[in-house]
Amino acid sequence: MNASVQPGQRADVQYLLRIGDACLVLSHRISEWIGHAPILEEELALGNIALDLLGQSRALLTRAGQLNEQLLDEDQLAYLREERHYLNPVMMELPRGDFAFTQARNLIAACWLMPMWTRLQASSDAEVAAIAAKAVKEVRYHQQHAAEWVVRLGDGTDESAQRMKAALAQLWPYVNELFASDEIDAAAEASGLGPAWSSLKPDWDAAMDQVLAEAQLARPKDTPHVYTGVRGVHSEHMGHMLATMQSLQRSYPGGVW
Amino acid sequence: MNASVQPGQRADVQYLLRIGDACLVLSHRISEWIGHAPILEEELALGNIALDLLGQSRALLTRAGQLNEQLLDEDQLAYLREERHYLNPVMMELPRGDFAFTQARNLIAACWLMPMWTRLQASSDAEVAAIAAKAVKEVRYHQQHAAEWVVRLGDGTDESAQRMKAALAQLWPYVNELFASDEIDAAAEASGLGPAWSSLKPDWDAAMDQVLAEAQLARPKDTPHVYTGVRGVHSEHMGHMLATMQSLQRSYPGGVW
Repeated sequence: MNASVQPGQRADVQYLLRIGDACLVLSHRISEWIGHAPILEEELALGNIALDLLGQSRALLTRAGQLNEQLLDEDQLAYLREERHYLNPVMMELPRGDFAFTQARNLIAACWLMPMWTRLQASSDAEVAAIAAKAVKEVRYHQQHAAEWVVRLGDGTDESAQRMKAALAQLWPYVNELFASDEIDAAAEASGLGPAWSSLKPDWDAAMDQVLAEAQLARPKDTPHVYTGVRGVHSEHMGHMLATMQSLQRSYPGGVW
Repeated sequence: MNASVQPGQRADVQYLLRIGDACLVLSHRISEWIGHAPILEEELALGNIALDLLGQSRALLTRAGQLNEQLLDEDQLAYLREERHYLNPVMMELPRGDFAFTQARNLIAACWLMPMWTRLQASSDAEVAAIAAKAVKEVRYHQQHAAEWVVRLGDGTDESAQRMKAALAQLWPYVNELFASDEIDAAAEASGLGPAWSSLKPDWDAAMDQVLAEAQLARPKDTPHVYTGVRGVHSEHMGHMLATMQSLQRSYPGGVW
């Protein structure tokens, strides 16, 4: 076992880690369907979405490592941090749940990442802008795919609608964190690195409301609590997930075994 | 729980299932690395290879279902058969092992699928020929990727070379089955559906010998036993794998939950 690594305190590094970790952790949760999905076509779709997110995460973690003066490479960032140094919003780390939960979370995440990547294409950091230009095309497909399922299930059988309603109700309290701004994203907006997360809300609202209307689903009520995964304070699910994700790298540091 | 399905006894259906099941089961074993690989780049590569194989499997199982007079669709074939109706060679179902084992098996499989798909492009079945035209491009990359790792590990450190030798020694007794011909592939060759597996051996030998030479690895000695996964007689590992793979489909037959 080797020691955990610390990504440092730079605001730009933290800003990129928040987005990169969101993609990394969501990718991991989606990939838990691989080998377990009930339909081959959907297993392929979810697998491709998970790999897209993993690729986006890798690109952002690589860039964060460079900005952090090469103290850490993307693999160390992905696999060797302690829980409190992962900066993903808590929603992404929740267990995969049932199929409705997975598609509802994918929709919420894609409607959030879509305006995120769109604006990151104009980042003052040319590397980030290039990553965003590729990612925005991928996330457009993710959004369409998840929206189709949310509509199909929400406007489907009694059971499917019930499950979709339950999924949205479970996820909604975690939405606030996706649009909470603080000094980290204020600095990113000031430097032109990327948008303040609060500015993404109108686009997200519009995209979600359109899908929910088509799915004949009521929008859940907003709740006051704001989770703090982006500050490294996670749910009880994060530790279990990291234990699985990190087991090989910690057993064979830097190796390929 | 719903009943298991039987794919029937048609020789052409069985021929396609043998190849489709090889891809399906190998895909599943490779996908077990997703979320557990020690390097992000390699996790992406293995994930993409697993999804390519899953896509190839889905295409062949779909075609097998059509030939079988639509008695079963590809999802039923993938998820609802009993163990003895899966027709993959036993090598593909062996547990994922360490990284050396995974890359060694991927190389053996790719060097086998490469001449398989190449010849299937000339299949008398136009659907199969079209599937093969796409697959051959994918498998070329799989072969290159696995060959690079086998060389890097075989011609690497003492430990990596030792692990690669152990992996090849463990896998070699399962090679015979990949080139054993019987009445099923004799019928396929006679009808023009696809090659007799024995005819693939010279290409496989040449490709393997080239990689082994570059990796400074001795070719293991051939063994006499021929495993019989293609006749539905599997190792003790198959049942455990199917239990995992089938759990959702059997809990929610035909559903997406």
